[in-house]
Amino acid sequence: MTRIFDDPAEFADDQLAGFLDLYADRVRGVHGGVVAHRGDGDPQVAVVIGGGSGHYPAFCGTVGPGMAHGAVVGNIFTSPSAAQAHSVGKAADQGRGVIFSFGNYAGDTINFGIAAERLRADGTDARVVIVTDDVASAEQESQRRGIAGDFTVFKVMGAAAARGADIDEVERLGRAANAATRSLGVAFTGCTMPGESEPLFSVPDGHLGLGLGIHGEPGIRDVPMLPARELAELLVDDVLKHAPTAAPGRAGVILNGLGTTKYEELFLLWRHVAPRLRDAGITIVDPEVGELVTSLDMGGCSLTLMWLDDELEPLWRADAYTPAYRKTAAPLAALREPTADELAEADAVVTAPEATDAARGLAGTVRAALAAVETTLREHEHELGRIDAVAGDGDHGRGMLKGITAATARVGELGDDVGGGWALAQAGQAWAERAGGTSGVLWGAALEAFGRRLGDSADGYPAAEVAAGVREFATTIQQLGGAQEGDKTLLDALLPFVAELESRVGDGAALAGAWTAAAGVATARAQDTAELRPKVGRARPLAERSVGTPDAGAVSMGLVVTAVAEVLTSQEEQE
Amino acid sequence: MTRIFDDPAEFADDQLAGFLDLYADRVRGVHGGVVAHRGDGDPQVAVVIGGGSGHYPAFCGTVGPGMAHGAVVGNIFTSPSAAQAHSVGKAADQGRGVIFSFGNYAGDTINFGIAAERLRADGTDARVVIVTDDVASAEQESQRRGIAGDFTVFKVMGAAAARGADIDEVERLGRAANAATRSLGVAFTGCTMPGESEPLFSVPDGHLGLGLGIHGEPGIRDVPMLPARELAELLVDDVLKHAPTAAPGRAGVILNGLGTTKYEELFLLWRHVAPRLRDAGITIVDPEVGELVTSLDMGGCSLTLMWLDDELEPLWRADAYTPAYRKTAAPLAALREPTADELAEADAVVTAPEATDAARGLAGTVRAALAAVETTLREHEHELGRIDAVAGDGDHGRGMLKGITAATARVGELGDDVGGGWALAQAGQAWAERAGGTSGVLWGAALEAFGRRLGDSADGYPAAEVAAGVREFATTIQQLGGAQEGDKTLLDALLPFVAELESRVGDGAALAGAWTAAAGVATARAQDTAELRPKVGRARPLAERSVGTPDAGAVSMGLVVTAVAEVLTSQEEQE
Repeated sequence: MTRIFDDPAEFADDQLAGFLDLYADRVRGVHGGVVAHRGDGDPQVAVVIGGGSGHYPAFCGTVGPGMAHGAVVGNIFTSPSAAQAHSVGKAADQGRGVIFSFGNYAGDTINFGIAAERLRADGTDARVVIVTDDVASAEQESQRRGIAGDFTVFKVMGAAAARGADIDEVERLGRAANAATRSLGVAFTGCTMPGESEPLFSVPDGHLGLGLGIHGEPGIRDVPMLPARELAELLVDDVLKHAPTAAPGRAGVILNGLGTTKYEELFLLWRHVAPRLRDAGITIVDPEVGELVTSLDMGGCSLTLMWLDDELEPLWRADAYTPAYRKTAAPLAALREPTADELAEADAVVTAPEATDAARGLAGTVRAALAAVETTLREHEHELGRIDAVAGDGDHGRGMLKGITAATARVGELGDDVGGGWALAQAGQAWAERAGGTSGVLWGAALEAFGRRLGDSADGYPAAEVAAGVREFATTIQQLGGAQEGDKTLLDALLPFVAELESRVGDGAALAGAWTAAAGVATARAQDTAELRPKVGRARPLAERSVGTPDAGAVSMGLVVTAVAEVLTSQEEQE
Repeated sequence: MTRIFDDPAEFADDQLAGFLDLYADRVRGVHGGVVAHRGDGDPQVAVVIGGGSGHYPAFCGTVGPGMAHGAVVGNIFTSPSAAQAHSVGKAADQGRGVIFSFGNYAGDTINFGIAAERLRADGTDARVVIVTDDVASAEQESQRRGIAGDFTVFKVMGAAAARGADIDEVERLGRAANAATRSLGVAFTGCTMPGESEPLFSVPDGHLGLGLGIHGEPGIRDVPMLPARELAELLVDDVLKHAPTAAPGRAGVILNGLGTTKYEELFLLWRHVAPRLRDAGITIVDPEVGELVTSLDMGGCSLTLMWLDDELEPLWRADAYTPAYRKTAAPLAALREPTADELAEADAVVTAPEATDAARGLAGTVRAALAAVETTLREHEHELGRIDAVAGDGDHGRGMLKGITAATARVGELGDDVGGGWALAQAGQAWAERAGGTSGVLWGAALEAFGRRLGDSADGYPAAEVAAGVREFATTIQQLGGAQEGDKTLLDALLPFVAELESRVGDGAALAGAWTAAAGVATARAQDTAELRPKVGRARPLAERSVGTPDAGAVSMGLVVTAVAEVLTSQEEQE
């Protein structure tokens, strides 16, 4: 819906006033429209484009060096008057004549035709080049409407004029561009005029209007909405079916958005359009994907090809500098694709450091611990989900399982000679990439920090070193997550765990016993998070939370350290 | 609604694939995102931007010379992982360090923070510059979210890096740009994720969400929708209220569209924003109005100011060349505003030719005839409307009256010494400009052609000359309108009128008598159009049309020539 306006009847004039203010450094307003500032270079044939408003950047958005010299601005979806066109043509004339160019609509044809006659009566040579690219609008080429092919025709004439061609030549090239241009559009929704609450026309829900005109003119038929791949096939195949005879193998291509169909959707569509064109033997030259001819807030898109011969191609590729369309070869010419060496360097995988025997031994413990944690989390996935659903979105069990599964898989891919520090760091990276969510990022980063702290160069990993690694794990979560103990997060289980571990290890206890005792503390504290208190970062009202349900993150922390305790105890017994 | 996709879960990757195909001449895909091709110039500090997808041109659309060196591309509205950011940072690094920059959201802060740490662990200097421009999101500046101010901060850092600044300097300037940037946004509608039929969030009908975040984060309050002028006041005043202390008097300004709010609406808003900023003493520097940071198909806009000191201004103004944002000073530098002489020449009014006595006498007849026609059409306005409503849109009477009123007014403004040819031509131009519709254009052009045919240099206007002028009038309508006699248009009254007039004048009759007889024929033939036949260019089904209702255009033609007949008869009697 069109929502920003003052008096809807003055929309076209009001938006033009804003445009003229914004681009005062390059255009000026004249009666009826806009004329580009000119330089002190040789005079050019003036290409004057136009039509109704509501199609920006058509028409005033493409006035400037290398494209149009002026634009006539009508009311919304309404042809400008002959007087407007005459006025803009007169102001744009540089003494070498004026070519009016516009899409083939009855009102425009009449008014620009009259304006051209008046200019001739004034003694100024004036021509008319009408754009007829829409293959859906009529069988006979000359009867077709003009849609996004406006752009290719204007571009060719603007470039020809900028190169100093005379009016006969610019007109001839414009007609050649039009003869080489074909478009097909689809509409998903209609558009709404300023001040109206109902759309001007509409497309049945879940359908697309094939060939529907940019003012709602009848199309070919309504089709149930298609996946992007099939939509691309429909557009490409139908445009190619209407190719000019003896079309060359190269084409300028436009994938044009009509208003509310966004860039990212158009890129996604382009992903299918481009290979299908190439499969048809077409070399795509300087494609444009974006909004070039719109229709207020209409949803939809169109595909345009201008087949390029040796004459049209350089004009299509030439520089242009307008408010909405800017193309300058120089900055790109200075770039180059990276060399193979540069690519190899950038993509080089950081390899594992050489590991001591002790570090390789530690890796065995890490593998066993990760396997045990995976088993535990798999067993408790649904329970964790149920707990999480009370205060959160219920995906905690699923997220933890995704993380640990990715971690064990990554460690499984490592060779036998890596150390435990490297294995933990890799496990953390894999966890963060796959688990998703803030909790996945925190677990992953904490494991990685743990592994980096341990490293793989030590000759032994005494309990105090492991405790220091666990402290690094906890500190990482505190720093990245920003929560404090008591906030009812996993920290409420983790921090008491670390404190207990450090305390017992400091008192000289062996690792397995100290860890087991600390795990008992973690499990108990996890249950304490069940007190009814707000949870940091949760939007859900307190009233919806049950008294007595602990925090899922704290519970899973308890489960993890308990599973690891069993591994450590079992290993100590074996030694 | 987002409509173009294949598997909605793959939307972000799929659109990126299309983007990479489209811009393969300037960027390459790496794990996690996009890196710009570089030239053989001196290595630069790499500015790596990013965040979730759905905000194009943020983020990959602003990668290129003069702006970012890489972009990390997350899932829709989801932070990229630390591994993605690390990968893009590594690939973008040119040996002078990496600065990650992004809007202030928890996931991005964590993941880019981890990536920076990993880069440092790899031996690459890495920094983080967080954008916090959204004044609606928090009182404390460092807590604010990042919205369109992303663009100003990225721009400044990209320009600084391109000039060879070191990483400390680029970081310092980025922080200075963020400290100088303030934004406020409004939302009219929510946005819909690919594959969903319901929007992710919504704004109450007829309201705007003031300060609503680009992912639907809570804003300040909902406000009933405002006219453009008041919306501009709201945005400008609130952004200025939050200006940095001791802000300079110059600012870069962005009026950003969120997705479905279109260029023309933004221009219309700019028309009010710009003068209000100037009234507040701000010099606007290189403003940008368009889509720079979007949110899928969200409706709404935001205003951003970056206050410019001597250090920031040249960086804001510097050239840049990216897929979505291109700025090159050279083409504009070659332009200049027209001189006073050139303007005078372009705006020169074509003045009336010198008129003979006979031509001045003819002008009296023209004035009298136009006045009589206006009287007749005013009397018959509603009747013509009723007739037209049977087969058309019922505005024929209104349109004719608007045309003749404009024509008589224009002729009334002409001096007493103009000739009748000039007066008729001027009447025609005024009619075409004001009456609207195809019929208005045809009447206007025909009157103008009539006047040009008569001219103002003759020593007399014998009946044969007048008849030739009327023939010109009819031919103009035939040529421009493309209809034939029998198509049930005004031609069915006009062509028999001209034939009768020519015949009687050819037989030697005086003008008044011949005209009166011909007018009788026209009136009769107008009634003959009542036969039930399809009317050219009418979409309304035949069944809806009443048998026995004539064409309104033919009827009004009969009325006009009859009114003129009375004037001619009265004048002949007086002579």
